[in-house]
Amino acid sequence: MAVHEDAPLAGLTVLEVSSFVAAPLGGMTLAQLGAQVIRIDPIGGGPDWRRWPLAPSGTSLYWTALNKGKRSVTLSFRAPEGQRLLGDLLTASGHDGGIVLTNAIGQDWLSHSALSRLRPDLIHLQIQGHRDGRAAVAYTVNAATGFPLITGPEGLDGPVNHVLPAWDVACGLYAAVGLLAAVRRRERTGVGSEITLALADVALAVAGHLGFLAEAQISGADRPRIGNHLYGSLGRDFQTADGKRVMVVALTRRHFADLAFATGLTSTFAELERLLHADFSKDGDRYCHRQVITALLEPWFAGRTLADIERVLSGTSVLWSRYRSFGDLAGEGTLGKSPLLQEITQPGVGPVYAPGSPLVMDGAAGPCAAPELGADTGSVLTGLLGLTATEVQALAQRGIIGGS
Amino acid sequence: MAVHEDAPLAGLTVLEVSSFVAAPLGGMTLAQLGAQVIRIDPIGGGPDWRRWPLAPSGTSLYWTALNKGKRSVTLSFRAPEGQRLLGDLLTASGHDGGIVLTNAIGQDWLSHSALSRLRPDLIHLQIQGHRDGRAAVAYTVNAATGFPLITGPEGLDGPVNHVLPAWDVACGLYAAVGLLAAVRRRERTGVGSEITLALADVALAVAGHLGFLAEAQISGADRPRIGNHLYGSLGRDFQTADGKRVMVVALTRRHFADLAFATGLTSTFAELERLLHADFSKDGDRYCHRQVITALLEPWFAGRTLADIERVLSGTSVLWSRYRSFGDLAGEGTLGKSPLLQEITQPGVGPVYAPGSPLVMDGAAGPCAAPELGADTGSVLTGLLGLTATEVQALAQRGIIGGS
Repeated sequence: MAVHEDAPLAGLTVLEVSSFVAAPLGGMTLAQLGAQVIRIDPIGGGPDWRRWPLAPSGTSLYWTALNKGKRSVTLSFRAPEGQRLLGDLLTASGHDGGIVLTNAIGQDWLSHSALSRLRPDLIHLQIQGHRDGRAAVAYTVNAATGFPLITGPEGLDGPVNHVLPAWDVACGLYAAVGLLAAVRRRERTGVGSEITLALADVALAVAGHLGFLAEAQISGADRPRIGNHLYGSLGRDFQTADGKRVMVVALTRRHFADLAFATGLTSTFAELERLLHADFSKDGDRYCHRQVITALLEPWFAGRTLADIERVLSGTSVLWSRYRSFGDLAGEGTLGKSPLLQEITQPGVGPVYAPGSPLVMDGAAGPCAAPELGADTGSVLTGLLGLTATEVQALAQRGIIGGS
Repeated sequence: MAVHEDAPLAGLTVLEVSSFVAAPLGGMTLAQLGAQVIRIDPIGGGPDWRRWPLAPSGTSLYWTALNKGKRSVTLSFRAPEGQRLLGDLLTASGHDGGIVLTNAIGQDWLSHSALSRLRPDLIHLQIQGHRDGRAAVAYTVNAATGFPLITGPEGLDGPVNHVLPAWDVACGLYAAVGLLAAVRRRERTGVGSEITLALADVALAVAGHLGFLAEAQISGADRPRIGNHLYGSLGRDFQTADGKRVMVVALTRRHFADLAFATGLTSTFAELERLLHADFSKDGDRYCHRQVITALLEPWFAGRTLADIERVLSGTSVLWSRYRSFGDLAGEGTLGKSPLLQEITQPGVGPVYAPGSPLVMDGAAGPCAAPELGADTGSVLTGLLGLTATEVQALAQRGIIGGS
């Protein structure tokens, strides 16, 4: 991959022994800022290697999306010699290496205590389900948080799961934060870090950081399910005359005044405020009277096409967006126009628009393709460990390493 | 706040000029790892100062949750003298300071170009809605991604919004990553960073990193709405005999074999595989036949209480969780038992369990209360800028700073 020499994380080397979303996303976040991230898999691939969705070739669009810009090494995880090679890579990864990111649980040879014997300055971050070591995935963690019971249409009975694996995403980004914080400490003090990060803790922490846990403790009651309304202010989806949907938000006094003006409802809302003894410049009042306010807005949206609505609302402070499907995004040329995405050629997939890091900063590179499984095994072992091509070939023949 | 001297980010000073979720969460993430984060608000508070949910006292449970462990300074944002004080703090914040995190848009005095004149080594991260400067919030960004149209019950028409502001959360964590990456580069090279991070880019990047964008480009079609089923493998919610719900996931061959055995369906599923010419050890086949598999599982769950189910499934590899509401979480004593949370006394709220960082590492502190608005104005100006108490008082009397 094309790493800029002035990339923020140029020089860092991270060994990643991972699967699924959180750990791979954490590693890729660092890779897209210039770190060398070497993903190490068992020969033949980990449990996520063929995960859906798949390209017609059988290549996983999921795996390739989560491993862009990494190098891929495959080893025998069972053979002591394979395990030892990971330790050798750790030792050989230099002053800015000695970093392991993993979500492998119950593998002694990957534990902090085993690996810190090889590198006392080891930075080791282990992602697990629960803090006590029990397994969990984003779907079970989400069920335990409270969000599914307040997501979805008003009046619905039962939970609505997230399709977005939001806890995996947050967990992967927390992992990147934890590793960089530990790198800073090591650069100042020479001391490594043992870090654990539980997916269930991430969900509970975020629920707490957003006030949901305090609300439940103070009120002693559950927040009601309010469909697509925005809690605590004014926002909802509306249907347009041409069968589209738009999400419209008036978070501040100015947004609401602009929305009222744009829809010709300024005096109607003023009259309504008097009738209800309300003050719609306050977000609490907009929220309490959301049903009547949005009922008055509905006909305005229902009577106009998306193009009409766009014409009227653009140039105002009103926050709004059309709802788009992923197919719309891919089909409308939106992806090609975004500076976030670039067309890459992904082995097994072909040309595809892929995102780089959303962090726009000097030296952050655009997206690179994901490696083919094991493609860098030889070059990493020769480059980092100084093995000869013959030695690499012998290891491959004996099934200690995979081949490219 | 009680910062450990060996905290990973001890010594760092970050000035945060923020509101709502993303920037405050980014700053708090650093504060919980030991950075000194000074949140600077206009006198009287920013637009999020009274945001719902509220405690009976009127204190925002949202604001206090997102600003734990920070120091709070209030200044006049309009008076040139107030603006200058922020510049003075930036200059005075030392070798490990000079860091600004903001989501204020269109304020020239907070821009990278203005502030980098004061500190050439400035690290400046600005969160915005779209990369081109247009405003957006998590609710409008989400509408544009495609997720709302595939979230929610099968057969439902229309979008289902996230209640979790997932894009704000991801954006705040990306901000923390970006700042730490820039800190590392500055420590190595002395060079500061101008970083921009758009909420809309975060959503599009994550959608891409998870394979949704590639899938839409390759298949040319939209993924169908599949309710609470897990895409690409086997997982769904089930009702229990005592009216509870559980989420059950069989992500691997072993999970599925354990689930089949626990529910007494091993031979039924084996027979079904023969009938359907399927192989349920493959996640794709479990996914394709999810309706019949889960239909066969349903009666087992419907005939058992939660306690029964727990007895049978615990000790197996099957991933599962009961659905809990936030009220359940607060009422069941779950919060008091989690080592992630500690009881703090939050001014305006009272005693409440609040989460620290989910990153478990040496020197990461437990949760601290959020400050009262402006409570640290005097101590920050005397401590960091060396003003006398009389000078501080004079500034407060002239309305240049808020008071504690």
